[in-house]
Amino acid sequence: LGLKDEAISLHRMLKGKIEIQSRISLENLFEAEKGTLGLIYTPGVAYVSKEISNNKELAYDYTSKWNNVAIVCDGTRVLGLGNVGPEAAIPVMEGKAVLFKILGGINAFPLCISTQNKEEIIRFVKEVEPMFGAINIEDIESPKVLEIVEGLQKTLSVPIFHDDQHGTAVITLAALINALRIVGKKLDAIKVVIAGAGSAGYGIVKILYEAGCHDIIVTDSKGALSTDTVNNNSNDDLVVKNRYKLELAQKTNPRKLTGNLEHVIEGADVFIGVSGKGGILNRQMIQSMNHDAIVFALSNPDPEILPSDALHGGARIAATGRSDFANQINNAVVFPSILRVLLDIRAKTLSEDMLVSVAYAIAGIVNDAHLMEDYIIPPVNDPRILPTVTKALRNAIQKHVTKATA
Amino acid sequence: LGLKDEAISLHRMLKGKIEIQSRISLENLFEAEKGTLGLIYTPGVAYVSKEISNNKELAYDYTSKWNNVAIVCDGTRVLGLGNVGPEAAIPVMEGKAVLFKILGGINAFPLCISTQNKEEIIRFVKEVEPMFGAINIEDIESPKVLEIVEGLQKTLSVPIFHDDQHGTAVITLAALINALRIVGKKLDAIKVVIAGAGSAGYGIVKILYEAGCHDIIVTDSKGALSTDTVNNNSNDDLVVKNRYKLELAQKTNPRKLTGNLEHVIEGADVFIGVSGKGGILNRQMIQSMNHDAIVFALSNPDPEILPSDALHGGARIAATGRSDFANQINNAVVFPSILRVLLDIRAKTLSEDMLVSVAYAIAGIVNDAHLMEDYIIPPVNDPRILPTVTKALRNAIQKHVTKATA
Repeated sequence: LGLKDEAISLHRMLKGKIEIQSRISLENLFEAEKGTLGLIYTPGVAYVSKEISNNKELAYDYTSKWNNVAIVCDGTRVLGLGNVGPEAAIPVMEGKAVLFKILGGINAFPLCISTQNKEEIIRFVKEVEPMFGAINIEDIESPKVLEIVEGLQKTLSVPIFHDDQHGTAVITLAALINALRIVGKKLDAIKVVIAGAGSAGYGIVKILYEAGCHDIIVTDSKGALSTDTVNNNSNDDLVVKNRYKLELAQKTNPRKLTGNLEHVIEGADVFIGVSGKGGILNRQMIQSMNHDAIVFALSNPDPEILPSDALHGGARIAATGRSDFANQINNAVVFPSILRVLLDIRAKTLSEDMLVSVAYAIAGIVNDAHLMEDYIIPPVNDPRILPTVTKALRNAIQKHVTKATA
Repeated sequence: LGLKDEAISLHRMLKGKIEIQSRISLENLFEAEKGTLGLIYTPGVAYVSKEISNNKELAYDYTSKWNNVAIVCDGTRVLGLGNVGPEAAIPVMEGKAVLFKILGGINAFPLCISTQNKEEIIRFVKEVEPMFGAINIEDIESPKVLEIVEGLQKTLSVPIFHDDQHGTAVITLAALINALRIVGKKLDAIKVVIAGAGSAGYGIVKILYEAGCHDIIVTDSKGALSTDTVNNNSNDDLVVKNRYKLELAQKTNPRKLTGNLEHVIEGADVFIGVSGKGGILNRQMIQSMNHDAIVFALSNPDPEILPSDALHGGARIAATGRSDFANQINNAVVFPSILRVLLDIRAKTLSEDMLVSVAYAIAGIVNDAHLMEDYIIPPVNDPRILPTVTKALRNAIQKHVTKATA
């Protein structure tokens, strides 16, 4: 069976990768008069309701809210498939919910919704907020999603995480830190080319910048972003429609290069693909990169270049987002443990320096003895990830608290 | 420990009565290269998404949608507690989700939402529709909720169930059928007084009417509803704000009685309390009823009269909605199995005659040998309920299909 047939027959057999489970013992639930039914349901539950209505904070103590995460998706940018609609997003979000549970002990419920309107999505998230301890925004098209996340950060009382932006940034930096250990280059001395100016590209530029890497070029379908192209109006997306692209243009491309990916990749040390477009890189382009090239082709399901082609083209290190190749640079290494911390300490904001701390902590899990071209990142199920991320993120948040109260 | 302390300490210990469970075997999930992670997540899941995007019906085959029910509540009328807000509704809705799972095998997820606006609730339900095979509307104040349910019945493509209206009606009629077997009276010859003109009162009047019981008086806080009081404007709720109360007034009170509950209960054969107000009935009022009086005091957590008081007052049969007294007339006998059928055959509408059929089927579970004053209704966990309701409801729906296609 091919991958497609295997995936479809597994899903057809399962008819759902997650389910709701009762945590109530059946033993004396229905016992006459003294059964627990009278405690978990009417009449006993009324006392619990009344207590919460007097102090809604108690919902964290008496209900599942403390451990509930909503995975909110409108189906507009599912994996690299584009606008497939909310129903087609469900299997992906159920897969995420499986990983949330297995790797973070979190109850994540997918809410794949029928509206694709920015204001309605913001309102929807505010409406479901009472049920959830945190919100995870997922696979919504950019730049709309960046505005949604900004808007919600201001108004929600629970933490919000944007996995495509924050999760991808952390795991990409972690992998890059380790790849650089192998090739012996430094973050502040490398040239990086990023294909893709959506949520992932935006998050990666911000985290690289914070980590001290400033020679970055971002390309979109029209070529390299730069403030010059903005001024020349050759890329009017930047000013008119997309202030996030403008921000990227201002932060990147210090040598004001122009032209397409094929041109700007010449001499680069690192390629990071988050374009959503499979196969846009070829061996010749890899050959034009600097020695010891690092190629992260992260689009899913089809990477910008297959690892075997990248390596044949002369790359020293190749990685993808997929679990069926070595070096899986996947958010799944990150999101369950970050959300675990956000739920546990109810931290509302993740700053760039916190994300950098987490990236270094994850990179540090791979020690020198194990670090190799095809092992730059711990696997998704490495049991050290949760305690490591927990410690690093708690410390970073604590520093902010200390700074704020100093 | 008292009931309150027991309920609160159990909820504090559990910190959530439901959780999300992964249905994926851990055994080879993370196996390198060939692990199932590559099927349930990227890259394999992309093929599943693509198939659904071409035909969204496949979401029923490849995801949990077929078995997912949203329990939607805005916190405005939780049990008999009133407008306690969405957070305080969570423990009640989690309790319902437990019963949905244990008794119907259904994945019910509570969505306790922060808006209490009618149009926004309708929009919210439409927005979450892609994730769910059916919608259960719960504990939203009347008459708003009746308009919401009507509005959604017209636009949703999945079944909608309004437990406070439909569930309460079915279980109340089932209990009444059996109570009448004991006292030897007939549905078309009894006088019924219903306290409460909200969703439950509305649903009960409609089902009793369909079942042939036409001498019904409904009281609200202003006394007996009748078309006369409407014309006299002494109850301007009826015309101005609440067309459902007007409908009740038109269907009930054939002898045009006026006055409060104390007055109109004189000579009644049956009292049904769905007022949301504990203690509004006393022994003297029971004594004024006809011989072999039947008293269903269904408000939760505090019934209109305690069963012991009703029996001391001369009632032959007393029942409540609570699990800690005999004769629990509770929707939980009904909603898991009705939703099971609605999910399985994706029937969109429940007509009154279908509900009557289900009530008779549930009543029939208690055979003559077991039928007694304190055993008129099968307990919530009677294993015969699911197959009995399934058979009765499928037959009733089939009759409609046959009629429609004849």
